[in-house]
Amino acid sequence: MRKATFGGANSLDNFIARSDGSFDWILWGEETKELMKDYWANVDTIVMGRKTWDVAVANSPKPKKKKATNPYGEIKTYVFSRTLEEGDHDGATILNRDPGEFLRDLKQQEGKDICIMGGGELARDLFEAGVIDEIGLNIHPVLLGQGVPLFHTISRQIDLELVECRPFKNGCVYVLYRVKN
Amino acid sequence: MRKATFGGANSLDNFIARSDGSFDWILWGEETKELMKDYWANVDTIVMGRKTWDVAVANSPKPKKKKATNPYGEIKTYVFSRTLEEGDHDGATILNRDPGEFLRDLKQQEGKDICIMGGGELARDLFEAGVIDEIGLNIHPVLLGQGVPLFHTISRQIDLELVECRPFKNGCVYVLYRVKN
Repeated sequence: MRKATFGGANSLDNFIARSDGSFDWILWGEETKELMKDYWANVDTIVMGRKTWDVAVANSPKPKKKKATNPYGEIKTYVFSRTLEEGDHDGATILNRDPGEFLRDLKQQEGKDICIMGGGELARDLFEAGVIDEIGLNIHPVLLGQGVPLFHTISRQIDLELVECRPFKNGCVYVLYRVKN
Repeated sequence: MRKATFGGANSLDNFIARSDGSFDWILWGEETKELMKDYWANVDTIVMGRKTWDVAVANSPKPKKKKATNPYGEIKTYVFSRTLEEGDHDGATILNRDPGEFLRDLKQQEGKDICIMGGGELARDLFEAGVIDEIGLNIHPVLLGQGVPLFHTISRQIDLELVECRPFKNGCVYVLYRVKN
């Protein structure tokens, strides 16, 4: 079965972006590049919420065209929205339905791993539905103090198993957990 | 100069206790014991907020006496309160004044290191005052989902330097940071 993974770069106080959505505080380096290369080689699908999609499109480095295009290129992208109409838009598939049920079905289909991207609102629903398999975080050596939270309130405790812990030269700590669903 | 350190056991979603103050989720083991032993050997003073003090006294394993006593025994304990009167009570010294100024003075005095204990309200004031020198966290492999937060909103970014990162057999990850004040 395909794995669904949640995570990304976070501050030690668990923000994934400043309050204005900016992420100029994110550190790069050879180790991060290698990690990302390995990760994306195993992923062919992204699932995210509408707010994350808006930020991704706005920050896309591609030249502005008449019509916005998916900043993730060939990777199949699903965007959950409670307000937009379902259908294919701007290179992504907009969905307005229960994320947990959708992801449970998607994991049964043929394909590579699935990346759950962005802030914690969609992730909260997916954690509660028990469909997230792994959490991978690149914990940055900074307290942002405020911003977009990685985790939102979840209605139940989620137990984890530490799979990997790797400190990077730039002061980041990469941690990978298996979710005990 | 004496070091002031902040930290403790936290969940991956940065809670230090459940909403009811309980910490039954905290894991122990030889590695944790050793870490704690080394840590407390270098500390002779605890600084905390009144809420943390109330929890500490309530959870003290000592037999109930007519008068509550400091659960930290011989360690000099300062408790900041905005409502209680200043003075020595129950083995602790209650303070009703600016925590940043107090800690800045305390660090200049003779003595061992100073432990900033508990939730983020007092820590927030002390981070903003630039008087915390180290953060040590024992990140537990669990999402509590909700509870008492480790970090509260801080008005400015705090940059950190990773000093140590040590995964434990029980799945915890110990991280130690120097605060770039």
